[in-house]
Amino acid sequence: MNKRLILKLAGSVLLVEAALMFAPLIISLIMRSGDWSAFALSIAITLAAGSGLSQVRPRDDTLSAREGFAVVTLSWLFVSFCGALPFFLSGAIPSLVDSVFETVSGFTTTGATILTNVEGLTRGLLFWRSLTHWAGGMGVLVLSLAIIPKMGGRSIYLMRAESSGPSTEKLVPRVGKTAKILYQLYIGMSLILMIALLLCGVNWYDSLIHTFGAAGTGGFSNYNASVAHLNNPAAEIVLGVFMVLFGVNFAVYYHVIHRNWSTLKQGSEWQLFLGIVAASTLAVAFSILRMPEFQGHFGRALRATFFQVSSIITTTGYATEDFNRWPQFSRTLLLVLMVIGGCAGSTAGGLKVIRIQVLFKSMARDIRKTVHPRSVNVIKLDGRALDEKLISGVQGYFFAAMMLIILSTLAVSLDNFDFETSFTAVVATFFNIGPGLSMVGPTGNFTAFSPAAKCVLILCMLMGRLEIFPILMLAAPSAYEK
Amino acid sequence: MNKRLILKLAGSVLLVEAALMFAPLIISLIMRSGDWSAFALSIAITLAAGSGLSQVRPRDDTLSAREGFAVVTLSWLFVSFCGALPFFLSGAIPSLVDSVFETVSGFTTTGATILTNVEGLTRGLLFWRSLTHWAGGMGVLVLSLAIIPKMGGRSIYLMRAESSGPSTEKLVPRVGKTAKILYQLYIGMSLILMIALLLCGVNWYDSLIHTFGAAGTGGFSNYNASVAHLNNPAAEIVLGVFMVLFGVNFAVYYHVIHRNWSTLKQGSEWQLFLGIVAASTLAVAFSILRMPEFQGHFGRALRATFFQVSSIITTTGYATEDFNRWPQFSRTLLLVLMVIGGCAGSTAGGLKVIRIQVLFKSMARDIRKTVHPRSVNVIKLDGRALDEKLISGVQGYFFAAMMLIILSTLAVSLDNFDFETSFTAVVATFFNIGPGLSMVGPTGNFTAFSPAAKCVLILCMLMGRLEIFPILMLAAPSAYEK
Repeated sequence: MNKRLILKLAGSVLLVEAALMFAPLIISLIMRSGDWSAFALSIAITLAAGSGLSQVRPRDDTLSAREGFAVVTLSWLFVSFCGALPFFLSGAIPSLVDSVFETVSGFTTTGATILTNVEGLTRGLLFWRSLTHWAGGMGVLVLSLAIIPKMGGRSIYLMRAESSGPSTEKLVPRVGKTAKILYQLYIGMSLILMIALLLCGVNWYDSLIHTFGAAGTGGFSNYNASVAHLNNPAAEIVLGVFMVLFGVNFAVYYHVIHRNWSTLKQGSEWQLFLGIVAASTLAVAFSILRMPEFQGHFGRALRATFFQVSSIITTTGYATEDFNRWPQFSRTLLLVLMVIGGCAGSTAGGLKVIRIQVLFKSMARDIRKTVHPRSVNVIKLDGRALDEKLISGVQGYFFAAMMLIILSTLAVSLDNFDFETSFTAVVATFFNIGPGLSMVGPTGNFTAFSPAAKCVLILCMLMGRLEIFPILMLAAPSAYEK
Repeated sequence: MNKRLILKLAGSVLLVEAALMFAPLIISLIMRSGDWSAFALSIAITLAAGSGLSQVRPRDDTLSAREGFAVVTLSWLFVSFCGALPFFLSGAIPSLVDSVFETVSGFTTTGATILTNVEGLTRGLLFWRSLTHWAGGMGVLVLSLAIIPKMGGRSIYLMRAESSGPSTEKLVPRVGKTAKILYQLYIGMSLILMIALLLCGVNWYDSLIHTFGAAGTGGFSNYNASVAHLNNPAAEIVLGVFMVLFGVNFAVYYHVIHRNWSTLKQGSEWQLFLGIVAASTLAVAFSILRMPEFQGHFGRALRATFFQVSSIITTTGYATEDFNRWPQFSRTLLLVLMVIGGCAGSTAGGLKVIRIQVLFKSMARDIRKTVHPRSVNVIKLDGRALDEKLISGVQGYFFAAMMLIILSTLAVSLDNFDFETSFTAVVATFFNIGPGLSMVGPTGNFTAFSPAAKCVLILCMLMGRLEIFPILMLAAPSAYEK
């Protein structure tokens, strides 16, 4: 392994993080929130570490796929640790594990919190907390690729290792250019969302915070009651629509802009995704109509349901209602949506719709094989035959995810909370959703877990965000061979 | 499809069932339990249906794999319906859905019950209920193959479709002979267990009932308190040991008898299975030591734990303790053991240890591929390279199982019971275990579910026992083509 190159690249990412930290520093100074010194100190430390590491001179500039994974894993560990410094140094979150939990939850766009009183945080820290969502959503490495002119050869491996979903589409031949296009789309859509929120009458600070949370599909709010606090039906609808939009593969928007209608029409993932959103919204709306507060208010039930379905399937985790109190069918359906997640190449978590498509198509083939054992069956998606390796990769990913969820639930259950709490806490962190059910439901939080359980959940968030194998690789002895 | 042959073969299985029903009839007459007329009537109906169907003259005698699956599925549906007749006709279980639920639970060796008072059933019905476990454990078709001289060409397909696990080992070239050997081993081991129970001081009737339940890894008892009622530590240990033995691939015993030591030593599945039993027993024993009733009684905790682990991993479901009250870690671990299940080719349910082995080996390969993308990796098990089709089949099976569990949980959750109840009810029926947690825990039962939810659970038991695809095949239009 080209260890020097790995350290150098991970160091460059820290420099980008230090630059990002200037934003909350400025907010802190403008709003006089009294936490500027924590940011100044954190920037100094991050900058020192980053510039020290980026001075390392590698023997050569070539990057293999394996080294790409190593860079991404190491960067995320560095960025999580340095990102936790403002919370820890300011004393706002006295425990280091808790500070790291909150930061990893931010960067991985999980949105799970250990804070019992979010509103007690200063304006600067709240801004940083939400900014981590925005930066982590599209990827801190993709961001680095977009702004650092040349990050080393074969940087496609970096982008692949950080992007979500089984395969990454290069929009244009050059990786740096692709990263730039993605961030332009991301910034553009975020701006439109922010303006829409302002037009709904939300103040600029709340608009920014909720734009970060929705664009990254993270779910941190600056209010204990989450989006319900805004008490603004128009803003709810705007956020609901935009969360769905951020759950769609960004390549779709590139094709829209370039009028590649035929490519768009062939893409079944985004169409299926929107279909699931529509069908689930209707199913949950009918199911909650029996509840006293929604009886005879189909419109209100539909709005509440659309927001919740959009928030859950995109793994954002914003809440306007305490869905923990909804009928069991709705709760279970929401849990299923959490697992499905958004489209590949979006900021959303979960298994991703395309994986579900591949798994179902493969299941249909298994049934066909039972009926006609000697038939030859190729699985087609969007008109193209799928590579058997990709199918097997998706199946392997599914097993690995379930296995890690089961093992993590077992570890977390040592804290002796009820099964629903332990299990949904793991699912909610692993798929980067945020709230689960029961104790970790939309009105609860993760503070009651032991530090050991929190560490397991931190690992879950990272494994979920980086799609397992870059993290599991660390456990393979052969990864450290030359 | 050779529909006539399928009907004829399924009819022959009904004849075997009618013959089996003479056993409870005799018990009923000996013990004067007053239910002989229900058995006589049921035998008449089953015999009439069976002999009618077996009169059908097929054009030819060849059986394809697809037709093999169809025979197995149809036989199980017939056998379940006719097997429910004694419960229904005697009036002991007034609802037809409930009667079928109890019978399917018996034949699939699930052991889930809708009875709130098991002890209220007559001796004859209790005997029939437990005999379904014993007959279903090794397979009603395998039984038919063993006793009917010639059941049609290529009957290996029948055996494969009914046996558990990803591949079926033919012990001797002829299928009928293999079936006979398996039943000889099964009867032999059952006899030894029964004698051991008699030596522990259990009366002959209770010994028979619990032998049927343990050999089929089913779990029906004739007492409300299950095995705890016997209050016999020696019998508990005997049952614990034999449940484990019945969870091992029966081919192992064939090799033991024929002294094929090298084949035995290479078989990693049974070794891993015993390792999991030992490790889980220790882990759970330590975890329950904190409970007041076990404090300072390590021996008692170990005995209780061994019995429970053995009962759960083999998916029997007998209980001596209310593990629903045990610490969350133990409850979750027991849930994991339910999913793992016993060895392929045993009477136990669950995913089967060999599938877990294949899935883990495939995951290790995925990690290796991340580290060394260009390396060629063959997965080896017991010294032989595994066929890629088998690996992909196991991965597909895993997804199909998880998907059906999720969809069934969604359907069952319409009854609005808590998540733990709905989810573990589905897991417990799908993997043919019996008790789950919460409302369907070891001291609970399935009576509170609506008829619709019970039908879903009946389907779960059948899909779990026949390993999904024979049942899903029914939904594929192409299965009905010529």
